Amino acid sequence: MNGADYLCDSLLANQIDVCFANPGTSEMHFVAALDRKPQMRCVLGLFEGVITGAADGYARMAEKPAATLLHLGPGLANGLANMHNAKKARTPMINVVGDHASHHSCYDAPLTSDVEGIARPMSHWVKRMATPAAIGQDVAQAVEQASQAPGNICTLILPADTAWTELEHQAEPVLAKPAARQQTSADAIKAAAKAIRSGKPALLFLGDVALREDALEIAGRIRQHCQVDILAEGFIRRMSRGATRTPIEKLPYPVDAACARLAHVKHLILVGSKAPVAFFAYPNKPSLLAPNEAEIITLASAEQDLTHALHALADELGVPANTPSYRLPEPRDTSIPTNGTLNGKAISQILAKYLPENTVLCDESISEGRDFMRYSLQAAPHDYLQLTGGAIGLGLPMATGAAIACPDRKVISLQADGSAMYTVQALWTQARESLNCLTIILANRSYATLHGEMRNVGVTQLGSNAKRMLDLDLPYLQWTQLAHGMGVPAVKVDSIETFTQALSNGLQAQGPCLIEALI
Amino acid sequence: MNGADYLCDSLLANQIDVCFANPGTSEMHFVAALDRKPQMRCVLGLFEGVITGAADGYARMAEKPAATLLHLGPGLANGLANMHNAKKARTPMINVVGDHASHHSCYDAPLTSDVEGIARPMSHWVKRMATPAAIGQDVAQAVEQASQAPGNICTLILPADTAWTELEHQAEPVLAKPAARQQTSADAIKAAAKAIRSGKPALLFLGDVALREDALEIAGRIRQHCQVDILAEGFIRRMSRGATRTPIEKLPYPVDAACARLAHVKHLILVGSKAPVAFFAYPNKPSLLAPNEAEIITLASAEQDLTHALHALADELGVPANTPSYRLPEPRDTSIPTNGTLNGKAISQILAKYLPENTVLCDESISEGRDFMRYSLQAAPHDYLQLTGGAIGLGLPMATGAAIACPDRKVISLQADGSAMYTVQALWTQARESLNCLTIILANRSYATLHGEMRNVGVTQLGSNAKRMLDLDLPYLQWTQLAHGMGVPAVKVDSIETFTQALSNGLQAQGPCLIEALI
Repeated sequence: MNGADYLCDSLLANQIDVCFANPGTSEMHFVAALDRKPQMRCVLGLFEGVITGAADGYARMAEKPAATLLHLGPGLANGLANMHNAKKARTPMINVVGDHASHHSCYDAPLTSDVEGIARPMSHWVKRMATPAAIGQDVAQAVEQASQAPGNICTLILPADTAWTELEHQAEPVLAKPAARQQTSADAIKAAAKAIRSGKPALLFLGDVALREDALEIAGRIRQHCQVDILAEGFIRRMSRGATRTPIEKLPYPVDAACARLAHVKHLILVGSKAPVAFFAYPNKPSLLAPNEAEIITLASAEQDLTHALHALADELGVPANTPSYRLPEPRDTSIPTNGTLNGKAISQILAKYLPENTVLCDESISEGRDFMRYSLQAAPHDYLQLTGGAIGLGLPMATGAAIACPDRKVISLQADGSAMYTVQALWTQARESLNCLTIILANRSYATLHGEMRNVGVTQLGSNAKRMLDLDLPYLQWTQLAHGMGVPAVKVDSIETFTQALSNGLQAQGPCLIEALI
Repeated sequence: MNGADYLCDSLLANQIDVCFANPGTSEMHFVAALDRKPQMRCVLGLFEGVITGAADGYARMAEKPAATLLHLGPGLANGLANMHNAKKARTPMINVVGDHASHHSCYDAPLTSDVEGIARPMSHWVKRMATPAAIGQDVAQAVEQASQAPGNICTLILPADTAWTELEHQAEPVLAKPAARQQTSADAIKAAAKAIRSGKPALLFLGDVALREDALEIAGRIRQHCQVDILAEGFIRRMSRGATRTPIEKLPYPVDAACARLAHVKHLILVGSKAPVAFFAYPNKPSLLAPNEAEIITLASAEQDLTHALHALADELGVPANTPSYRLPEPRDTSIPTNGTLNGKAISQILAKYLPENTVLCDESISEGRDFMRYSLQAAPHDYLQLTGGAIGLGLPMATGAAIACPDRKVISLQADGSAMYTVQALWTQARESLNCLTIILANRSYATLHGEMRNVGVTQLGSNAKRMLDLDLPYLQWTQLAHGMGVPAVKVDSIETFTQALSNGLQAQGPCLIEALI
């Protein structure tokens, strides 16, 4: 038994049985050990951004971390952007990053780099596995850290000699101690209740697991009974949505719209959320989106038991147990366009109408899919996963990981074209693993968000340099060809009729497929 | 004039007139400023690894840095792997990384991260441009640092408010002071000469610009006159090769072969190189490749004037000025196979035979293209650029940047399939810019190097997990479709006849094209 075997055993004993991997030479002993453990599902990605994004999507749905296997500093570096998204989502993740044998690091070989230094900005916790005998403890500690609510990014560095060295004695895995979420304080509950009772406009601002079905249901009951407003954070790890769930809006992305949405609020009550801030700063616009005079009260932080906190608040407010939760006052118009121009709005309407029950919807639609949130309020119940940290290129990997976690559910990516290109290699993993992933590429052939932002900075007429940095034309990307190149069936559509038909086909298909929607 | 304008002016005044860019919202003022400066050539990449790899290839050929434009921490993170390669190559590079406005950084917005922390492991020099008025000095300092021989990676962080703030007074660019390479010492020259005269086997071990035509010519004259061995470092930024140049081998990659190549050496003389170390460590194999008893002498370091050092050494050794440089003792057999199985060796032979004069050859062929070095010793004169830091995914971006630097030369990528996938988005930039890039994909459909490394760790029979991490099958990548998807004409070949024809067509083509060679 060498260190690599001990590492595999330790991961498996802690219920970590999926490893998204892109290994290299320094990890060969670990690969050999994984090869001796068929219980570990190893999923290859052809680029490390796919690996870390898939681990994020997997953990969002499986409610436990996956392992990643990355090759030295540069392999880790390639995975950082989606680790950043996972860090902002507070998704649990355990990265195993190979490094040179400890005696080799001093020689500045070509692949030598500061692995700790690379890991730290995007990790909550970093540890070098210095000796094979301590691997059991190291893994248990990583699992405890990763699983600590709301979730943490843990990076374990595996020197090649730690992997290849034989242990002196057979070693047993160490089991991580489970950590329950702490309950919020009675004072916090009283303060929130007092604010709601004050008669001045109060808002329950929900984040993290307060956006899951059970917690939302209670928030909706409080809303019904107390006429308190409810609102979700703008960027969401996972939310329960659809007709049988309590409907809730997200905080709008544009600063002006967000400020307008919050303008009336006198008491902003945080439930697993943070006080809302602008995504970007702009000259003469605020960073903090709530009105200056609003009182900010923390009912419970994301580290705490949010469902309990909402229950306790409902009790404190005297919400009768049989109060029905909030629902939309009247059914929304679910008619859909059957002809006319294909655009993001039409796609959102049609997708919402035909969304299968229990879909996992991965949203990296950026500018073109914003209408989906509105039209899908009464869609079939589904889980909604979103780009969280603003590092575009999460969508396709996240869908890949979610599909590994939920083999019996349809996973649909509502995906901007520019963003999809960052980690386009995910399509190959979807094909290799025969994942039930349907990708809808919203092909507007530009970085449309940036066109809007250029107008925001006062540029109304783009010159050649700006066009060359903002437009994805000359040549147009051919998404059907890209998908076929990676083994994913694909079709290009440019009308409402052909999109509707392609969606129908895609929803019936087993395995991955892609719709390139020209809008 | 705002800070962004001043930054553009400062770059242009310092002859930095190419910017490889992937901007985001926080860089919109800089994009607007670039739009006002058509002298700056802005080249969009659809993923940041393309940007930094292209900046590397550009600087290797243009002998001056390009600028990159990257979007906050995650955009920088996506560019790190190819910054790593450039750092190991000692290529000059100036990264401009946007960041949040300084007053916004404290709010932990979704895209907030530790930009300095992300930059440092792959940069030689990092500076935050804190005030618009200091931008001129900041840029001059960055250019000086980047251009300091042998070359450095400099990262300038541009807070959005530094970019958007109007300067109080019109500001002039500050010009970087040119820094000449220092000459090596007389003692170093005498020590190297003494070692060569000792009669014991000595080796001139050449790196950096000692591998350019003029320096190689002198090394070859010393070899001819003194019977001293010459050898190139294993991983090379740029080397002058072909029939009219002094032929030189590279140090082999496998540890055993490298040790065997150096076994006879008693005096290892470094000329812009470092003492040779193993690429990876293996159990019971050495990290240092030269024999323990070999004396290591530095004639000149990469910071110094290597051509002068070799001239001075030749003078010290009394090499007559008219000594012809070393050439191969007899013409190599340049016959090529005309039928039979297509493999890396056949491709190497055929490519070497038909290589156009003045080609820029970008080598990321990993396992399958190793024969090219041997067969191309008497090919038409060409420049050879190689993956330097072991972070695969440099090849296609490097070719892209080299073609921007050398619009009148053919750029050929000899490219492994697994490695090409990491930064496959480079093909789109080649199409967009109509670059004269011919890509030969050596499609062995596996991480073939890792199969060899698995045998090295004693695994002869792969199980399912290992196969799933090492083989690029199920599904096969279809490179012609991937290329067509990004606007690059492509053809798939599987025989010597069809490869030879495709190569002939590709060499005549203007603009990019790709040959998928099934081997």
